[in-house]
Amino acid sequence: MRFDLGQSIDVLRRTPATFMALLGGLDEPWIRGTEGPETFSPFDVVGHLIDGEETDWIPRARIILARGPNPLFEPYDRFRHKKRNVGRSMTSLLQEFAGLRAANIELLDSWHVSDADLGLPGEHPGLGRVTFRQLLAAWVDHALGHIAQTTRVMAKQYKDEIGPWVPYLPVVTDRPVPKS
Amino acid sequence: MRFDLGQSIDVLRRTPATFMALLGGLDEPWIRGTEGPETFSPFDVVGHLIDGEETDWIPRARIILARGPNPLFEPYDRFRHKKRNVGRSMTSLLQEFAGLRAANIELLDSWHVSDADLGLPGEHPGLGRVTFRQLLAAWVDHALGHIAQTTRVMAKQYKDEIGPWVPYLPVVTDRPVPKS
Repeated sequence: MRFDLGQSIDVLRRTPATFMALLGGLDEPWIRGTEGPETFSPFDVVGHLIDGEETDWIPRARIILARGPNPLFEPYDRFRHKKRNVGRSMTSLLQEFAGLRAANIELLDSWHVSDADLGLPGEHPGLGRVTFRQLLAAWVDHALGHIAQTTRVMAKQYKDEIGPWVPYLPVVTDRPVPKS
Repeated sequence: MRFDLGQSIDVLRRTPATFMALLGGLDEPWIRGTEGPETFSPFDVVGHLIDGEETDWIPRARIILARGPNPLFEPYDRFRHKKRNVGRSMTSLLQEFAGLRAANIELLDSWHVSDADLGLPGEHPGLGRVTFRQLLAAWVDHALGHIAQTTRVMAKQYKDEIGPWVPYLPVVTDRPVPKS
């Protein structure tokens, strides 16, 4: 599949409603389970997505579109949400994420991004030179990956409860060594 | 996390709305992409979930609750949907799935399942003896696993478009050998 701006925005626009349908009002055990130490719970995932809206994707897009001589991105803090969201409710985080994502999509729309813009470069602190197109595609895949992670983490909470079904439900044995 | 009937039903109830938020009205390239030959697209996943509602979980629950001397499940056809849904739209499948799942949850509620019922046995054609509790937990994890699969398959459609981000977005390299 080739990158398409409209098709990318369509997935970005759906992410908050997908999380709301999956997690809004859900009991704590589903929301707070993890895959082990230093891994994200569904609550952490939504906090991390909020951080992405505030500090990652759009700020980096602005750096690229500023067309400066050194379009270096700020490093991204993957654990900003940990302290930030102590005491918050899942519903409050979901609503905040939905508001931030909607505003960011509105901003992206307002830029009327051209094909030429999509080829503009940025400098990622870990990955080196990237294009605006790759940044937007990564924003989409980042969202999709975190939906996959959320449902995988939830499924793993029932690994002992499904008994003999473990080999038929490989989601509970995926990522034995967590990567994100 | 220990099995809880109410918490299990809560996840089962959310599955159709989650798929609707993610896939309802989405463009064909997102819906028809796969992870390679003989693997499911998002369209296939929803068809497979419909098959599960009609031929798997509730029919097997009925066999268990009938308390017969030989509670053997019928084998499940993982590819029934392939011929069944030719020419159907994604929206039509999503609506059918939502109706079937809602009716099945209503039926499950109407049984007023007790703790003793949850220990009743069934005989799985491939896995041997299972309990009603394990069947219900597997129904939940099956749904969650297929949400994870759907978003993983979608993310992989942009694998070439994210360029240098591949090592930071492991969802596009998960399951190099498809398992379901």
